[in-house]
Amino acid sequence: MSQSTFLKNVWYAAGWSADLAPGARIARTILNRPVVLWRSEEGTASALEDRCVHRAMALSAGVVTGSRLRCAYHGLEFAADGRCVRIPAQDRIPETARVRHYPLVERQALMWIWMGDAEQADPSLIPDYPIHEDASYAWRGAHLQVNGNWQLLVDNLMDLSHLPYIHARTIGGDPDLHFRTKTKSEKRGQTVRVTRLMPDSEPPPTYVDAANFQGKVDRWQEVIFEPVFIRIHTGACDAGTGAYDGPDYGALGTTRFSMRGCHAITPETETTTHYFWSMATNILDNGVPDEVFEQTARTFREDQEVLELQQRRMLECPDEPLIDIASDVGGRHTRQLIANLRRENIGMG
Amino acid sequence: MSQSTFLKNVWYAAGWSADLAPGARIARTILNRPVVLWRSEEGTASALEDRCVHRAMALSAGVVTGSRLRCAYHGLEFAADGRCVRIPAQDRIPETARVRHYPLVERQALMWIWMGDAEQADPSLIPDYPIHEDASYAWRGAHLQVNGNWQLLVDNLMDLSHLPYIHARTIGGDPDLHFRTKTKSEKRGQTVRVTRLMPDSEPPPTYVDAANFQGKVDRWQEVIFEPVFIRIHTGACDAGTGAYDGPDYGALGTTRFSMRGCHAITPETETTTHYFWSMATNILDNGVPDEVFEQTARTFREDQEVLELQQRRMLECPDEPLIDIASDVGGRHTRQLIANLRRENIGMG
Amino acid sequence: MSQSTFLKNVWYAAGWSADLAPGARIARTILNRPVVLWRSEEGTASALEDRCVHRAMALSAGVVTGSRLRCAYHGLEFAADGRCVRIPAQDRIPETARVRHYPLVERQALMWIWMGDAEQADPSLIPDYPIHEDASYAWRGAHLQVNGNWQLLVDNLMDLSHLPYIHARTIGGDPDLHFRTKTKSEKRGQTVRVTRLMPDSEPPPTYVDAANFQGKVDRWQEVIFEPVFIRIHTGACDAGTGAYDGPDYGALGTTRFSMRGCHAITPETETTTHYFWSMATNILDNGVPDEVFEQTARTFREDQEVLELQQRRMLECPDEPLIDIASDVGGRHTRQLIANLRRENIGMG
Repeated sequence: MSQSTFLKNVWYAAGWSADLAPGARIARTILNRPVVLWRSEEGTASALEDRCVHRAMALSAGVVTGSRLRCAYHGLEFAADGRCVRIPAQDRIPETARVRHYPLVERQALMWIWMGDAEQADPSLIPDYPIHEDASYAWRGAHLQVNGNWQLLVDNLMDLSHLPYIHARTIGGDPDLHFRTKTKSEKRGQTVRVTRLMPDSEPPPTYVDAANFQGKVDRWQEVIFEPVFIRIHTGACDAGTGAYDGPDYGALGTTRFSMRGCHAITPETETTTHYFWSMATNILDNGVPDEVFEQTARTFREDQEVLELQQRRMLECPDEPLIDIASDVGGRHTRQLIANLRRENIGMG
Repeated sequence: MSQSTFLKNVWYAAGWSADLAPGARIARTILNRPVVLWRSEEGTASALEDRCVHRAMALSAGVVTGSRLRCAYHGLEFAADGRCVRIPAQDRIPETARVRHYPLVERQALMWIWMGDAEQADPSLIPDYPIHEDASYAWRGAHLQVNGNWQLLVDNLMDLSHLPYIHARTIGGDPDLHFRTKTKSEKRGQTVRVTRLMPDSEPPPTYVDAANFQGKVDRWQEVIFEPVFIRIHTGACDAGTGAYDGPDYGALGTTRFSMRGCHAITPETETTTHYFWSMATNILDNGVPDEVFEQTARTFREDQEVLELQQRRMLECPDEPLIDIASDVGGRHTRQLIANLRRENIGMG
Repeated sequence: MSQSTFLKNVWYAAGWSADLAPGARIARTILNRPVVLWRSEEGTASALEDRCVHRAMALSAGVVTGSRLRCAYHGLEFAADGRCVRIPAQDRIPETARVRHYPLVERQALMWIWMGDAEQADPSLIPDYPIHEDASYAWRGAHLQVNGNWQLLVDNLMDLSHLPYIHARTIGGDPDLHFRTKTKSEKRGQTVRVTRLMPDSEPPPTYVDAANFQGKVDRWQEVIFEPVFIRIHTGACDAGTGAYDGPDYGALGTTRFSMRGCHAITPETETTTHYFWSMATNILDNGVPDEVFEQTARTFREDQEVLELQQRRMLECPDEPLIDIASDVGGRHTRQLIANLRRENIGMG
């Protein structure tokens, strides 16, 4: 990890829209760069370099005034595009009086930032996540800061065989069931899709509690990676009612229980990562959404501890070999995809 | 800032005399060197390298015994000039048994240290600050440790246009008045003098409270830099009574209110700074000196936060350009002067 | 200290056997390497690299199951020799699925580890310390982590002339007696033996309290270094009853008081050290063992503070000269021996 592992020309989640009220500023390091996210009094969110061009003061310590961000130190004011539009007690504003501007787009509850070549910042490339606007789901979002390289988090999510170990106390479930289940991984363009199917199996207690299953179920786990966003869909239907038919698991089944995880992964530095996640469920009553969210939050804190221990060891023993095992197939596909993208990014950069 | 920014052959404030009682030791890093300040039981203050020549133990952990400083570890004793004068259970003391001695002079309430070439340590070069001995002023001193390079603090003090922004809640005053006021900067030998005059203006509330002004005033701000000591004189007289006449602002005016700041700036490391400051006022009653000191202390803590944010950004983005604005004229003169001195210091070193 | 100061091909104390119950794991850095000490459910203690060969997870966060250590992340299981013996949901285990194994031997209450060339790990080279199994002594052990290079701790123990200074409040005793006492140092093979005899002297108060001496005593201090283990034997007998006769001080005397210190010194990193020490005494009643242990623990915390101040100064001023004094004779012999061993280790490595 001595050289940068970052992909530059992709959209990254920069934060939850709801966390940035009109007039507010958030200081956030993204891909090693200090960034200020701020929202004008009229409601437009923007991202600028968090460093005044005059004396390097953090602009996030400043004040939003109308549609401008004013530096706290000597009062220089900046527009959303990074141009300085006022220098107190000075008439002429030089052309060099500007800070770097990062494209920022709000979509489906998240703010998305582009840290790479601005000319390639095409909003149509932003990962689509309609669940955040789908009234048949209830969801809650969170922000974790993980002291580990972003790829460790990707590896973690692409290989769910860790569930019976790390999460034995929460969502792990029956280890034997996990061992019997084959993992399938497919690359398709810039995505990797990992699936694990458990047909005609005993539903875990939480599934029964939430959806009141009366007998066996057809379960699924589906993990879809695109750079750098992971969707995880897990759930079950009554066995034999078409859980695996059609393009979307469970869409045709009866007594469906569905949990959908949004995992937006944004490098903060080479050894720390912003993790914006949400958990949605299709059972809206009996406290199920809150229960599902709380259980997921506990689970991810368990993962966080693991990633931080991994990162420490990798820094301590940087050049020592590691091996892959059978369940790494999804992770390996993902790392190949990332390596290809990194080469292309460098070629472009 | 990858190479040293220090000026070596200048007198630096090492501490307040009152903070070092007979028999006391203070461990203090100055220009990246560990220094022990200590005062003999007879009352003489000295400065030595804070590292025993035997086993590198910090001498500041030792004991003052008469006019000697005894190491806490094996009992070696050192005189004020750094020579070892006793080694327990050993008769001969080798010539190499000595620690580095730094010239130290007490003057006008401060201890001044010379970290450079000892042969050039001429006490007549110590900045003169008679205010600390002037019975017509009341003053109090303080010591701040700032997590920023010393030049950021110099910049801060040489450009008071930050007052209406950083200090809006304390000494800022009317922004419009600040914007209308021209800043004048003059270089003269090894000093830079910045002045801002506000004739026939409304006095700020604190001025009225302190000096009971009845009408408009002639105000001044005067900042004088010499390496590395800054005097700031601010105040006002009744308008039209000669505030700006004579060599010293306000000396000839009536109902004079005068605040005099001593700002002794001593690099601790490249990214941290000792800041020994005092604030004096000529209104001695009605609690004015305490009020002025407390307000100044609050103000400087605001500056401290700014400098620390600046330093962080400069370390994060070391090679990125900054611009000057009109109000930087005094700071620019000062940095030119410092750059010249640094070249000469290196030539001498 | 820019290059390694470690001796590699020696046995190091890794911990107290009593601190590792069946099924327990201890994460410990030794010679800059992450090590997990663990004990099987059957009772065998082992040492492995604390880093799973799959994803670099700390094995010390795992679970002992029978005679195996299972990784907390994906459930790989390792035998005591470092071989992976189970990969969940995978039949074939590749030859490369192993973590580094360190020889570990338990003897006389300590676990001894060999970090060097495994072929040279001869258990007969482990320092012998029968006091821990001698019913005529009562002892207690402890583990200190010292923020200083291991050689600073060796220096400290080989030159007891620091007692009247650092330990004036505890075991220091009469400074004049210390100054009159000659220090003798002998090199013999891979050991250094330092002795200081105080015949016909006044016993210190703690000696009188413990052993009820009625008159003068013949006292001794004996320090024996072998890499990297130090035995310190101090004590006294009634004067003139043969304290110094025979191969073991005090063995032939009457009213003997004997304190025996075990000092096992294990580098953690270049600037931090594990210090496993025990203190034993031959007076078993009247609370003497507890009193002696508590006093020693206080004393070693005083040493710890000194070593940490030394280390800081050595890091700040790495290239500046130090001098030896007369009482350094034992320390100088020891450092010569260590330097020779280091050269040989490099030759072997």
